[in-house]
Amino acid sequence: MKEWALKAYRDMSESELACELAIQKERYAAFAAQELKLNMARGKPSPEQLDLSLPLLDMVRGADAPELLLAGSAEDYRNYGGLVGLPKMRSLMGSILGVPAANVIVGGNSSLSLMYYLVSLAMMRGVLGSEPWARLEGTPKFLCPAPGYDRHFAICEFFGIEMIVVPLSETGPDMDLVEQHVQGDELVKGIWCVPRFSNPTGCVYSNETVERFAALRPAAKDFRIYWDNAYAVHELLPVASSSADLPASSPDSLPASTGILNLMDACNATANDNIWYQFCSTSKITFAGGGVAAFASSAENIKSIMDALIIRTIGPDKINQERHLRLLPNLAAVQEHMDKHAAILSPKFAAVDRVLTDQLSEAGIGRWTNPEGGYFISFDGLPRTAIRTVELAEGAGVVLTPAGATYPYGKDPLDANIRIAPSYPSLNELELAAEVLACCILIASLEQLLK
Amino acid sequence: MKEWALKAYRDMSESELACELAIQKERYAAFAAQELKLNMARGKPSPEQLDLSLPLLDMVRGADAPELLLAGSAEDYRNYGGLVGLPKMRSLMGSILGVPAANVIVGGNSSLSLMYYLVSLAMMRGVLGSEPWARLEGTPKFLCPAPGYDRHFAICEFFGIEMIVVPLSETGPDMDLVEQHVQGDELVKGIWCVPRFSNPTGCVYSNETVERFAALRPAAKDFRIYWDNAYAVHELLPVASSSADLPASSPDSLPASTGILNLMDACNATANDNIWYQFCSTSKITFAGGGVAAFASSAENIKSIMDALIIRTIGPDKINQERHLRLLPNLAAVQEHMDKHAAILSPKFAAVDRVLTDQLSEAGIGRWTNPEGGYFISFDGLPRTAIRTVELAEGAGVVLTPAGATYPYGKDPLDANIRIAPSYPSLNELELAAEVLACCILIASLEQLLK
Repeated sequence: MKEWALKAYRDMSESELACELAIQKERYAAFAAQELKLNMARGKPSPEQLDLSLPLLDMVRGADAPELLLAGSAEDYRNYGGLVGLPKMRSLMGSILGVPAANVIVGGNSSLSLMYYLVSLAMMRGVLGSEPWARLEGTPKFLCPAPGYDRHFAICEFFGIEMIVVPLSETGPDMDLVEQHVQGDELVKGIWCVPRFSNPTGCVYSNETVERFAALRPAAKDFRIYWDNAYAVHELLPVASSSADLPASSPDSLPASTGILNLMDACNATANDNIWYQFCSTSKITFAGGGVAAFASSAENIKSIMDALIIRTIGPDKINQERHLRLLPNLAAVQEHMDKHAAILSPKFAAVDRVLTDQLSEAGIGRWTNPEGGYFISFDGLPRTAIRTVELAEGAGVVLTPAGATYPYGKDPLDANIRIAPSYPSLNELELAAEVLACCILIASLEQLLK
Repeated sequence: MKEWALKAYRDMSESELACELAIQKERYAAFAAQELKLNMARGKPSPEQLDLSLPLLDMVRGADAPELLLAGSAEDYRNYGGLVGLPKMRSLMGSILGVPAANVIVGGNSSLSLMYYLVSLAMMRGVLGSEPWARLEGTPKFLCPAPGYDRHFAICEFFGIEMIVVPLSETGPDMDLVEQHVQGDELVKGIWCVPRFSNPTGCVYSNETVERFAALRPAAKDFRIYWDNAYAVHELLPVASSSADLPASSPDSLPASTGILNLMDACNATANDNIWYQFCSTSKITFAGGGVAAFASSAENIKSIMDALIIRTIGPDKINQERHLRLLPNLAAVQEHMDKHAAILSPKFAAVDRVLTDQLSEAGIGRWTNPEGGYFISFDGLPRTAIRTVELAEGAGVVLTPAGATYPYGKDPLDANIRIAPSYPSLNELELAAEVLACCILIASLEQLLK
């Protein structure tokens, strides 16, 4: 977090503020006249990042026919079957998540779909024999560390699950509050977590946070931690080269989870084996529209979910799994590949930080994160400025995530948080977009201060 | 349907039957000694059929990068987005189903998943604003034409939907019964239909059947026809060459639906626009494990489902859709491709028919279908012989679909129906498997007659 500057808008007189506002409005008009079309709304990989995975398209060829029958299983992977995915793909996704292959189900192209599915199953069928949430007398509740990921919140809203905001700090959710809710209320059934490079703050959960999660004693037996490890291997600095210096154990052992305690191990140690669900995908590793998603959990949870899954599908697209395995046979290959993403992404994060520092630090009307991984920068401005800022930016051709989206029900109580997604625009576009954003932040702040 | 033979087991004396049983048991022992491993259980394409689509794997290559940005839409199809699929893929699937692209959602690799999803949505959220089925005072019910598809029945059982058996004739379900249930009971919410080359009987719904479906006036406003058009283009005789003789209208006009009335048109004509859901996939066109699935319905239904779908996914694997479009750009290409499947499949269906005719027609203890498309032969034996037959076959190394699977709750009231899936084994294996099956049918029948 950047500190508030000393020489700040707060020290200006009303006429000074008005003068400053006029200056910024002039700048804004100049931006608006350019009829820009820039987008910092969603965490989409850029075309340049997608190009990194073009070799994926050549990994499985028509001429491969005889090999197609193998693929690490007795099944022809062009055919039906393989409910939980190719054994080697389960193993690869397990190595990303820090769990054995047997604890992994691989399927579809979207971890969001897997999260939706797990919640829908709990609503309709309960969890390991518990009462289906749809049949409870009260309304089921989820804890929602915020700012957080809007699509998590949308799943809750869709199913009528009440959302309780829990503040998110740099070490994870406020665990005192989490413990209080989880241990005190049988209707609290889950919590959404993005433990590593959280969306949007980029924070990484501390070991203490993970340990306190593992030590929870929920009032509800069917309480689950929804651990969305979307950015498990998404550092903004190179990893593969540095991890090469580590003592060489198995090539699939876990530098990826360096810096964050293994949730499964922690939960097993506290005899809380079934409390966790983990999710990830290759959407931001290979192709966002053609990757592979995975779910992981305890043996007992996995067995129960397999029994339900067979009702829904005969099996996933195993050809695309094999394609991925040939490009990324193990975790070392994944990390080498992720270093190439980092090389594209980190200058973009740096550019936004540089522009915001240049334009905002003097004014002292906001602070923002400077994450070491993930896809977002989280900006907190003065109260009652976020909606106005996003509106101004849109007026100048810069699309941002809607203000409020990072809070349950789209309602940021302070109207202060803005999620910045620097990945998609080119570096030049991004610098321009960040300047526009900074200008809009200044205007919204000045308007607020002048009220 | 083959007719019962004249010179039949029924005309034999008890000692003649016993003698015949001894003969068949000797044959059976000889089969068993071969330690066969044959499988006629599921409608899986054979490796030879899968080979037909190997060119699919070369359709989208790494070198294609610039083209990737187009794909019939403004979106890079390697990236997120495209909730309902590529426009051209919606159009292609629409041409298979006989509906415009705007009425189609394309996504995932499994039409079964789409059916599951539609039922789960209705359970949790209702249909176009109706009361969610999970909150009804009574139990929701589905009509299940039988014999039918076990995975349809499994979805109902999973969600606790009561299944009502409706007899299936050669022209479709008993429509008197369908009308009676649908129009008389507000808890009847759906019916499973495989209108063309039904699973397992291979029957094709008559125009009158389709018209009576379109004219239904359900007691429940949220009643839907679940029209699983799994075999829409799956003739066992060549189509492309014959349809070339038709007057050339648009290349995408509909020879595929020749012989079956267009359900959407029929429903629109009766102002029943929203009553139908249609499903299909390319699982038995290209790769069963790596195809593309589609759902179609009225504009109003599609809009409502899109609003729900965005909660579950950011978009499907559009790269695989583009791959399919390049191999199969239009319906004519699909039909040409299907003719190649037909050339592989029809000798297999003929072989089973020949063996059963040779071995069973004299005995007069069963009849079976001789379908013009689809994946199955449906065999009806003497009452109380199906379970025993399947058990005997398994003992001789021939795996069949479990007896009863073609009825709701796995309970065939007569214990007489067996589903035969001739697609997967090679022709030689299949002939042997059919001989084993015939022998088992004879033994089970003789045992029954001697009781």
